[in-house]
Amino acid sequence: MIIITQPHATETQLEHIIARIREFGLDAQVNRGASRVIIQVLGSVELAREKPLAAMPGVEAVVPVLKPYKLAAYEFRGGASSVPIGNVSVGRTERVTVISGPCSVESEEQILSIARTVKKAGASILRGGAFKPRTSPYSFQGLGEDGLRFLAQARERTGMPVITEIMDARDLPIIEKYADCLQVGARNMQNFSLLKEVGRSRLPVMLKRGFSATINDLLMSAEYILKEGNMNVLLCERGIRTFESAARYTLDLNAVPILKSRTHLPVVVDPTHGIGLREFVPQMSLAAVAAGADALMIEVHDSPELAKSDGEQALTPDIFEEMIPRLRAVAAAVGRQL
Amino acid sequence: MIIITQPHATETQLEHIIARIREFGLDAQVNRGASRVIIQVLGSVELAREKPLAAMPGVEAVVPVLKPYKLAAYEFRGGASSVPIGNVSVGRTERVTVISGPCSVESEEQILSIARTVKKAGASILRGGAFKPRTSPYSFQGLGEDGLRFLAQARERTGMPVITEIMDARDLPIIEKYADCLQVGARNMQNFSLLKEVGRSRLPVMLKRGFSATINDLLMSAEYILKEGNMNVLLCERGIRTFESAARYTLDLNAVPILKSRTHLPVVVDPTHGIGLREFVPQMSLAAVAAGADALMIEVHDSPELAKSDGEQALTPDIFEEMIPRLRAVAAAVGRQL
Amino acid sequence: MIIITQPHATETQLEHIIARIREFGLDAQVNRGASRVIIQVLGSVELAREKPLAAMPGVEAVVPVLKPYKLAAYEFRGGASSVPIGNVSVGRTERVTVISGPCSVESEEQILSIARTVKKAGASILRGGAFKPRTSPYSFQGLGEDGLRFLAQARERTGMPVITEIMDARDLPIIEKYADCLQVGARNMQNFSLLKEVGRSRLPVMLKRGFSATINDLLMSAEYILKEGNMNVLLCERGIRTFESAARYTLDLNAVPILKSRTHLPVVVDPTHGIGLREFVPQMSLAAVAAGADALMIEVHDSPELAKSDGEQALTPDIFEEMIPRLRAVAAAVGRQL
Amino acid sequence: MIIITQPHATETQLEHIIARIREFGLDAQVNRGASRVIIQVLGSVELAREKPLAAMPGVEAVVPVLKPYKLAAYEFRGGASSVPIGNVSVGRTERVTVISGPCSVESEEQILSIARTVKKAGASILRGGAFKPRTSPYSFQGLGEDGLRFLAQARERTGMPVITEIMDARDLPIIEKYADCLQVGARNMQNFSLLKEVGRSRLPVMLKRGFSATINDLLMSAEYILKEGNMNVLLCERGIRTFESAARYTLDLNAVPILKSRTHLPVVVDPTHGIGLREFVPQMSLAAVAAGADALMIEVHDSPELAKSDGEQALTPDIFEEMIPRLRAVAAAVGRQL
Repeated sequence: MIIITQPHATETQLEHIIARIREFGLDAQVNRGASRVIIQVLGSVELAREKPLAAMPGVEAVVPVLKPYKLAAYEFRGGASSVPIGNVSVGRTERVTVISGPCSVESEEQILSIARTVKKAGASILRGGAFKPRTSPYSFQGLGEDGLRFLAQARERTGMPVITEIMDARDLPIIEKYADCLQVGARNMQNFSLLKEVGRSRLPVMLKRGFSATINDLLMSAEYILKEGNMNVLLCERGIRTFESAARYTLDLNAVPILKSRTHLPVVVDPTHGIGLREFVPQMSLAAVAAGADALMIEVHDSPELAKSDGEQALTPDIFEEMIPRLRAVAAAVGRQL
Repeated sequence: MIIITQPHATETQLEHIIARIREFGLDAQVNRGASRVIIQVLGSVELAREKPLAAMPGVEAVVPVLKPYKLAAYEFRGGASSVPIGNVSVGRTERVTVISGPCSVESEEQILSIARTVKKAGASILRGGAFKPRTSPYSFQGLGEDGLRFLAQARERTGMPVITEIMDARDLPIIEKYADCLQVGARNMQNFSLLKEVGRSRLPVMLKRGFSATINDLLMSAEYILKEGNMNVLLCERGIRTFESAARYTLDLNAVPILKSRTHLPVVVDPTHGIGLREFVPQMSLAAVAAGADALMIEVHDSPELAKSDGEQALTPDIFEEMIPRLRAVAAAVGRQL
Repeated sequence: MIIITQPHATETQLEHIIARIREFGLDAQVNRGASRVIIQVLGSVELAREKPLAAMPGVEAVVPVLKPYKLAAYEFRGGASSVPIGNVSVGRTERVTVISGPCSVESEEQILSIARTVKKAGASILRGGAFKPRTSPYSFQGLGEDGLRFLAQARERTGMPVITEIMDARDLPIIEKYADCLQVGARNMQNFSLLKEVGRSRLPVMLKRGFSATINDLLMSAEYILKEGNMNVLLCERGIRTFESAARYTLDLNAVPILKSRTHLPVVVDPTHGIGLREFVPQMSLAAVAAGADALMIEVHDSPELAKSDGEQALTPDIFEEMIPRLRAVAAAVGRQL
Repeated sequence: MIIITQPHATETQLEHIIARIREFGLDAQVNRGASRVIIQVLGSVELAREKPLAAMPGVEAVVPVLKPYKLAAYEFRGGASSVPIGNVSVGRTERVTVISGPCSVESEEQILSIARTVKKAGASILRGGAFKPRTSPYSFQGLGEDGLRFLAQARERTGMPVITEIMDARDLPIIEKYADCLQVGARNMQNFSLLKEVGRSRLPVMLKRGFSATINDLLMSAEYILKEGNMNVLLCERGIRTFESAARYTLDLNAVPILKSRTHLPVVVDPTHGIGLREFVPQMSLAAVAAGADALMIEVHDSPELAKSDGEQALTPDIFEEMIPRLRAVAAAVGRQL
């Protein structure tokens, strides 16, 4: 942390700032410039981050020079990590993983039928929601444990590991019974109690970026999970809120290379929510792979107009199947494979 | 709900749309125009809202003509509601309530001393965090139950009811033991499990707007609480995320008159977070009252540079005291009183 | 400007950075810290601002410690400025000025009738567009010189100075013939050719903030005008684009106290565009005055449903008249007068 | 246009609405539903768009069913257009065009040397600014006509057509003397005077999306140019402003497939400004091609740290050269070629 004083900061203010830094158990290295004094604060990151030094008289700016996250930082591993989801490993290798399935699990037949379809086309992980976060309390809220059971049955029959959303820390034991990977949704990205809880799970966690969370916020939320000891975290870009209303969200593909330079964690992209319009999901899927995504999460529904949620954006099985060879070609073009 | 077809929708598509509507237990009233067909969907709101009709072939637009919330709607009460917090009533009357206190409860002495200061100046409800949602897992996370106990002691001594944040549904019993009002923070505004839980509490709930939630999202989240039977909900505007970086957030005062036209629930404004810079909090407090806020929530700390959180934005006691007479004058100018 | 090196910057990189700074005619003061080197760059602001030092190997961050604007800075005057518009002076004093009139000048009778109405109610400057920036080329584009002539006639009859928008540098001579103040619209806030041109006019200029310009961008655009010698510049907050769709724009009242702390230039607020919904314009006008605005610009139309532009947001004369006493009361409450 | 009345609209209000529609020279088709009346307004688009019918008593919503642009609409051509820039044709075919060069023309040698480099690597159009829109009036403003001359010389020597920015309608004759394509910058996207002027030029125009313009705004601005008779317009996505601060802008690749479905005009992507960080420009270039861009515009500078503008984001020649084969591979993967 570097503190820059105002041009006319007094000696008394300066002494006060330095005294405070020392009280905090930190060290201060003072450099007097022509019109300003620059103070380097040395010591433990955790201590330094906490202190509201910008509130002190005479201070113009506080420049944090250390990243606020440690375990999530690229430097912590010095390379990319891979995260195992059942028998599938995501990240680090040149493989691009396709995660697919319906928004919600609606019935035993539905999830099994879609699972078979997407597996055949090329997906290797099955998604499906049993507990659904819905903006309206009057909307379909998911099948709960039944949904989890149907998911697990689909895994038995297809061999695909399953990922499903956790909305409430109290549901962890039951979800752990059935699922291979936990998903923390965008609306819960800063539900810190939930983050701590999944940080103590044995299951990997896919953390979706809040639709108005910065890339740094996302990494800080990942840090919450990592700090509890669960190192199997995947980050998922799924669109942010902007002024543009032509699409449901603005898929922020800038986040892909930026995340990959800052963290060792695998980066997943969800083009389905990121654009929210079925007809454009294939192009955005191709773009995500070209930008460097380690995995894609794509909603497929065999009868979107009957879907209990997100019908407008789910791909039909034939669009999904038709897209896979193009994904393979783009993956190959950037030195990866599907 | 009104469905507008594409100009060249076929008769088969039209029949398919109508059949689907009827399958859903709804009724369809068809009006054939020059180049489009317009279908009014009649029936229960809950059913109608659920249906992904926009995903059907031949549909150009679906226009929802009913508000997606019922219990939160102004029409539900046909007038403003008031919400009791301890012995203080917020909303409906011409009184503007001031809620004040530190960001975090830091010690028994601190909270008592600040409580006395703000009460003397004119605040009538005490705020203070015991469970703190922090972006970083390395930041101060609050004193937990000790903090709650100190808050309750401050209430005993000053007579002010207390409001404190709940971050985890599992903390409800303990918080209910000490507090007079629950606060659901911006980051948990769409933590639907938590909303349902506080909807079953006997305590009133102040729901803060997520920093990228629309006004409609906020009302839908309030609906979650109301639907569980807890009708004592207050809504709090606290700044939204925009591209502007001169302030921490953009306080959206447009939300005040818009909310008051759409809902009967009282509207609180938090100018402290809404601008995030101590020196400008007084002006934004005045503006919030002029715009029609029913209450203000303002952070005060007797020693901001030592605060364990939010030191940059808390008012010092003397700035707070100096501001109150101006608030009174503005309140009077708009026909209200502090 | 302060340059902070990366932790492992080499001596060669450091020498290279310093050599470059000296080549630019600037001076470098070097402070070696524990793991980083901090270089203060001394010399002319104009030179320093230009240099892409962040692109050099070994540099972690460049912290600009000087404001990028000079003539617009509060320190340049050391107090607030007032800007004369005809016989009315805006800013510095405790007077709050009301600028009012229709969006577009539509006819001789219309502008005269509205001018009389708003003057009688309390406005002291008349607004009206003759050249209209419209999103669609098929929309009404203004009456051009006829509109200017009608405005000037309204001034003769009512004594109110007039403000009108300039969209094209080539229209300056003709607008100067009729108007008392030039308006540069939000969409032209970074039309730098136009800014330079109005910077050479003898008329004052009201510069509207682009709907996604930062406060700093606005001050930099003002600097373009000031630098050409025209010191009579007013800044106008008129709403920014955000994700919120309940109102046309988000009126950013945070900008009012922030601007007033950074610049000596008067600050105008346009609540009409800032919320875009007639029924809420009065509350936002009151809030703008409470936040410290020096002037308000409010659209009034005697028959909004017939207006050639912006019919949804213009106040009717009776709402305008009814609002003025409340504005006066709020102004008085914050130590000002209308 | 479809007008939906409020549930309790009176017969008098209804008659008034219909009378007004007829006065406007439009026709009204009335459909009475259970609780609302739905009125289809028939007649000329230009007339219908203009009318502020939402301001009338009894109206709940006005739903525009016709696109507000005509000449830019995909349907106008019924297929993609190609735009000739010198001897290069952009759009419609499977070729992806690379436009490259420095941000600013700085000297005769600089532009020639960079032109040769980028041509050799695979670019076919040369970019370079002679008139520079800069946020600060103290920044380098371009070489003006000298810059244009150097560009034209580079064209003579390399055979590449050149594109350069026009900031002021009065510069059109001189720019037309030297350039092959005009660029209208993001800050001038709604400078309607300039749009009309370039609409009368014989040169093609590349229109950059304003950094907070919606996709619809961009199409409406294109319509201004097309309406004047210049049908050679290209649209360029170059990043929008959002709350994310990790990159300079958020490149909105969603805009690529959405634009291509709405308009026949070619779509260019500028990843350089869209992410603003040199190291990530290659990934975003690949993503843009995968998303369906017809052309890329990429800044290259042989010595970025000495660049007079945008040094932080320009690619060095070797990064550019290294990227081209990967671009070719991705283009091939999506059925196109570079």
